[in-house]
Amino acid sequence: MSAKKRGAEVARGGVQLKTPKGTVDSFGKEVILREQVTSKISDIFRRHGGNPLDTPVFELKEILTGKYGEDAKLIYDLQDQGGEACALRFDLTVPLARWVAMNNVTQVKRYHIGNVYRRDQPAIARGRLRAFQQADFDIVGQYDPMIADSEILRIIVEVFKSLEININIKMNHRRILDGLFVVAGVPEEKVRAISSAVDKLDKLPWAEVKKEMVGEKGLPEEVADRIGEYVQHSGNIDKMLQYLRADATLCANESVKEGLADMELLATYLQAYGITDRVIFDFALARGLDYYTGLIYEIIFQPTAAEAATIQVGSIGAGGRYDNLVGMYGRRTAPCVGISFGVDRILSILKAQRTSESQLQTEPVEVYVMAFGSKDFGGLLPERMAVTAQLWDGGIRAEFMSKVKPKLPNQFKAAVDVPIAVILGEDELKEGKVRVKALGLPDGHPEKEGVLIQKSELVAEVQKRLAR
Amino acid sequence: MSAKKRGAEVARGGVQLKTPKGTVDSFGKEVILREQVTSKISDIFRRHGGNPLDTPVFELKEILTGKYGEDAKLIYDLQDQGGEACALRFDLTVPLARWVAMNNVTQVKRYHIGNVYRRDQPAIARGRLRAFQQADFDIVGQYDPMIADSEILRIIVEVFKSLEININIKMNHRRILDGLFVVAGVPEEKVRAISSAVDKLDKLPWAEVKKEMVGEKGLPEEVADRIGEYVQHSGNIDKMLQYLRADATLCANESVKEGLADMELLATYLQAYGITDRVIFDFALARGLDYYTGLIYEIIFQPTAAEAATIQVGSIGAGGRYDNLVGMYGRRTAPCVGISFGVDRILSILKAQRTSESQLQTEPVEVYVMAFGSKDFGGLLPERMAVTAQLWDGGIRAEFMSKVKPKLPNQFKAAVDVPIAVILGEDELKEGKVRVKALGLPDGHPEKEGVLIQKSELVAEVQKRLAR
Repeated sequence: MSAKKRGAEVARGGVQLKTPKGTVDSFGKEVILREQVTSKISDIFRRHGGNPLDTPVFELKEILTGKYGEDAKLIYDLQDQGGEACALRFDLTVPLARWVAMNNVTQVKRYHIGNVYRRDQPAIARGRLRAFQQADFDIVGQYDPMIADSEILRIIVEVFKSLEININIKMNHRRILDGLFVVAGVPEEKVRAISSAVDKLDKLPWAEVKKEMVGEKGLPEEVADRIGEYVQHSGNIDKMLQYLRADATLCANESVKEGLADMELLATYLQAYGITDRVIFDFALARGLDYYTGLIYEIIFQPTAAEAATIQVGSIGAGGRYDNLVGMYGRRTAPCVGISFGVDRILSILKAQRTSESQLQTEPVEVYVMAFGSKDFGGLLPERMAVTAQLWDGGIRAEFMSKVKPKLPNQFKAAVDVPIAVILGEDELKEGKVRVKALGLPDGHPEKEGVLIQKSELVAEVQKRLAR
Repeated sequence: MSAKKRGAEVARGGVQLKTPKGTVDSFGKEVILREQVTSKISDIFRRHGGNPLDTPVFELKEILTGKYGEDAKLIYDLQDQGGEACALRFDLTVPLARWVAMNNVTQVKRYHIGNVYRRDQPAIARGRLRAFQQADFDIVGQYDPMIADSEILRIIVEVFKSLEININIKMNHRRILDGLFVVAGVPEEKVRAISSAVDKLDKLPWAEVKKEMVGEKGLPEEVADRIGEYVQHSGNIDKMLQYLRADATLCANESVKEGLADMELLATYLQAYGITDRVIFDFALARGLDYYTGLIYEIIFQPTAAEAATIQVGSIGAGGRYDNLVGMYGRRTAPCVGISFGVDRILSILKAQRTSESQLQTEPVEVYVMAFGSKDFGGLLPERMAVTAQLWDGGIRAEFMSKVKPKLPNQFKAAVDVPIAVILGEDELKEGKVRVKALGLPDGHPEKEGVLIQKSELVAEVQKRLAR
């Protein structure tokens, strides 16, 4: 294939020749790399007993309403063309909750790899798109506390080990955070709004976030300052548990107490899974979405010194516990905990790491079928077709030149990246023979001119040579 | 997982608990079957030198405008939320043409497996959905006539051979059809409208189609009758070529003459590919979409007598040559020919054929890790976690019961479909040992009670047993 990238958009008859804002095409090796990544991820999901779920790309609008807090403005609506009001899915979590409620599911480990859509400000180079792929694993069901949560954290570590990407997991607990806010003096009704301000701390400096709290959200300055004091704390789980236990004011708060009990259990389970050192307990992590109720976490890429200069991505995955979302749809509740991996951001890391083109594997053509003859030969097109079909039937990736009478040098040129040529000549075909030639052999090699074999043995002969 | 299907939709707070009209969820084995089918299809696409392309699920609205004739009313528009006017893709062909024009591609074999969206009247049981998956292969580029076209037909035959589905290919040529209409007396400006009436012949009887031509589209009755005479003809390519050559009036028409030359070449190439017997030349095939210019075809499922009663699907794939579509966007044209497989309809055939559940392969859990102890034992949860993690690290699909103190009978019940149990006991763990037990062994089997092994050898031991 030959594709030249044009700098500018091309227009004809007023038609803009581009993809919609924040979306991209991907082709060839790029798509194959994505398939390799999602296949590694889904292998791990199945290793943990995951079942695949596929839901429609759009949902009834009312299914999505009231689930995303301030982010709801980013939802893509479908136009009303007579019928139901629909919107593109914003994540894979709300569709899961809808499916769980609709089918009265009580227990399931489900995974889902698919695109989601957000009318956000795109930054394509950093893998921030309006249409992007998520890979989700969620555990639905009533279990003893923190067992499912710790398995999700374990899955995160397994996924990035398999992708050879260095990461940390930043985590916090919604109940602890809520308690912190109350102890700091935030009125109950402002806790959600203040939480979503804190969520911006990974993008904005504290001064900006404080301005939002005091200015926009009307928090007294001294309350904001007490929050600012708390959210500076982060570290390994044992250190942070010590800090919490030592603060009698915090521990007196019911909400903090509940969160602390969860985190104590989690510390034991992370130890059993051998992943304690991959996790950072960070009071500044808030997660904007409304539906989280317990443990929350984000996956942070840890670049090497060399990578830090070139690879700029934010979090490459996030998730948490959301015990009330299913209950918003049905009579029954179903506790849930899960993780969304941001596949596009993972790909932008992998592509930056693989500087050499050859590190991207593809499946190129294996055999090129050519015709050779005197000046006025017929081109042997039906014969090339029949021989190529024989190779296809043998499962071999084969091509020939789509010309009735191709010139031999042009055929060799077209086969430049192909390891094996099959060359047909009129006289040889009459004897039921074809020539098989490994391309790119050095001069003087005994098989430089190829070898003549029985046509009926072609597939076996090619397979033998490909296996070398 | 445990999911009970509810008969009725559940509502709460006025929220309808359902997927949008014409869309479905799929779960578990259903998703895995779909992956198996698309993976077989993409293997064949790559065998023919195909490169994967992925385009956004929505396009600028103007990219889709004027490409689909009467079907344009079925396009899903996105709501205008400030910004560009967009619409969900209606097929994968127009996005390919947009990509080819935008990147000045001159030659490519591209494949694309993805969902498309049409606001059509759904019939879910027959695999007719509003959101459905297509698997497309197209050859873009200027080649000697009919070489690429015949490769597409060959790909169709390979795909259904690999899926073990019995099919025929119905084909026709737009130039012959256009010529037929002109010879029958259809005015030039009505050819497209009459063509789309003929396209309905696979769903409606001739009398209805004639009514549309004469009533709605204002064709004189005798002209309609002449068309009715022509479109009765179908058969194998050699017979139909004979018929055409024998009709001097038809052959005098330039358009028919061009189409006939193409079909003569095609006959030779189908012979070379060994697929002549799979193809029916049918004058009644028209294909509704505006963009076809040459050969057109549809894939027709051929049920056995037993299947015919239960499996009702229309065409399970269609395509053709469209040489002018790319030129609608840019200065340069690029001849194209391709095929779209309807994956959902293929799945509805495969599911109907696989009556036994077991014919749907899944990847179930391989090992269940249990704890065994006296009445007041601790449940060994961190120990079960650590052993399960050891199995996960070995790539083994393993689970344990998410309870702090599970009862042994409940653990065996949960493991009912799992081939191997690993049983932990406090005393045995102290000696560094675990018990491995194949589940479902008959009484009296020497390993009925399992075997005690070194914990460090667990992965190797389990792999040995799974390989049996």
